[in-house]
Amino acid sequence: MSVAGETAVREIGPGRWAGQIHDRWDVAGNANGGYLMAIGARAMAADAQHPDPVTVTAHYVSPGRPGPVEIETSCLKGGKRFSTVRGTMTSEGRPLLALLGTYGDLTARKTLERIEGHPPEVADVDACIELAPTESFPPPFVGKIELRLDPRDALVSGRPAEGVPTVRGWFRLRDGEPIDTLALLIAVDAFPPTAFSMQLPVAWTPTLELTAHLRRRPAPGWLRCQFSTRFVSGGFLEEDGEVWDSTGALVAQSRQLALIPRG
Amino acid sequence: MSVAGETAVREIGPGRWAGQIHDRWDVAGNANGGYLMAIGARAMAADAQHPDPVTVTAHYVSPGRPGPVEIETSCLKGGKRFSTVRGTMTSEGRPLLALLGTYGDLTARKTLERIEGHPPEVADVDACIELAPTESFPPPFVGKIELRLDPRDALVSGRPAEGVPTVRGWFRLRDGEPIDTLALLIAVDAFPPTAFSMQLPVAWTPTLELTAHLRRRPAPGWLRCQFSTRFVSGGFLEEDGEVWDSTGALVAQSRQLALIPRG
Repeated sequence: MSVAGETAVREIGPGRWAGQIHDRWDVAGNANGGYLMAIGARAMAADAQHPDPVTVTAHYVSPGRPGPVEIETSCLKGGKRFSTVRGTMTSEGRPLLALLGTYGDLTARKTLERIEGHPPEVADVDACIELAPTESFPPPFVGKIELRLDPRDALVSGRPAEGVPTVRGWFRLRDGEPIDTLALLIAVDAFPPTAFSMQLPVAWTPTLELTAHLRRRPAPGWLRCQFSTRFVSGGFLEEDGEVWDSTGALVAQSRQLALIPRG
Repeated sequence: MSVAGETAVREIGPGRWAGQIHDRWDVAGNANGGYLMAIGARAMAADAQHPDPVTVTAHYVSPGRPGPVEIETSCLKGGKRFSTVRGTMTSEGRPLLALLGTYGDLTARKTLERIEGHPPEVADVDACIELAPTESFPPPFVGKIELRLDPRDALVSGRPAEGVPTVRGWFRLRDGEPIDTLALLIAVDAFPPTAFSMQLPVAWTPTLELTAHLRRRPAPGWLRCQFSTRFVSGGFLEEDGEVWDSTGALVAQSRQLALIPRG
């Protein structure tokens, strides 16, 4: 099935939407955070008067397992250019995610541009490592998408990271499925955690919160992605992401706050 | 009055709180975004079972003017370590802010630390420029706090920024008022916009969304702050902030998405 199909929702009442966490989107049994966000954000988009998420934040309160979910949405303010919408995803009454998003129209248009920096330097797609799903690592959900990892990064090379721990690579959907702004929410949480590059003595770094800023609808083709972590501190770490499309345009920025589990 | 006093709320019903937007917290008539966030986050803290905001996101839907506001809060999940709470601030029924936060206890404790980088290099406090409030720029609200700007930054020097546009400086509250984690939310939105360093042809860059990640309660003293913007693109810009305390510990990271007004 397509990613669009596996994130689909249908209206079951005013501001109430039914969705489904499909099988094999999991990481050690728990559904991937970007996938859950995409389902919730799709319900919110249906409630907004505007098609594209411009900024969406999700707080993860319980793990998601395969099965039906319900999303409640409410539009706080619908404006001419933007709408702000809340969402809550539950599974059998148990809250999984709290969401807050502002929606607009991200059709590419001429705007003032000033980019300090450049798209991340990622090895060519053919020179990158293809992740194929297994029962352990990489997790099953990588079978839903296509991921390629830069072999120079510590995660792949096994050599300790020098400087800022970084994971770079390429993302696209399978079978040429177009990547809309909702599927972009999957791209920002699809790569292995930067913590794995740092050889931190933890098995997992659960996401507390994920915010994505979307700048424009991506052009067709591979997305060039980079994730890095500068601060492991206070029991938390941030993971900052950038996603660029095949035309060299920045399409999304993301930041998540993840928890360092207590020993 | 103290910042704690000017962000105070009182319970007026289950999950309902009354607050006040005090005079002279404005920028050209509209209340500062970090100040509004602090009022909302204080009401949410009162509803959470945990004292400190760990991650808070605000979406700004209408400008705030001096006068009474009401904050509705609801705790989505209260856990042993974290609580996730929603908030909505309204003024005479008109929504101003939608908030979503996760609260915990940020008492400093021994944790795994790995910091790539270092506190921002800011000129000594005495060598920095003190901002005194005027009726235009800087805006009145700088009278509520103490800000010092690094004279080397383009905003102060008037020379075009080389590389990533950055605003650096120092923040503290007046009269030695301690900075708790709620007042930290004011620090992340108190400095002049980075857009002013870029000489963009816009008079203002309104904030659509602001997210703050708090890592620990700040030690007494000046906070060392840095804000920078790498991507003006698609009609938006991000502003990334870091706040460090007098012991050299990272206490907060922030990112906001601001709008480039259409010509």
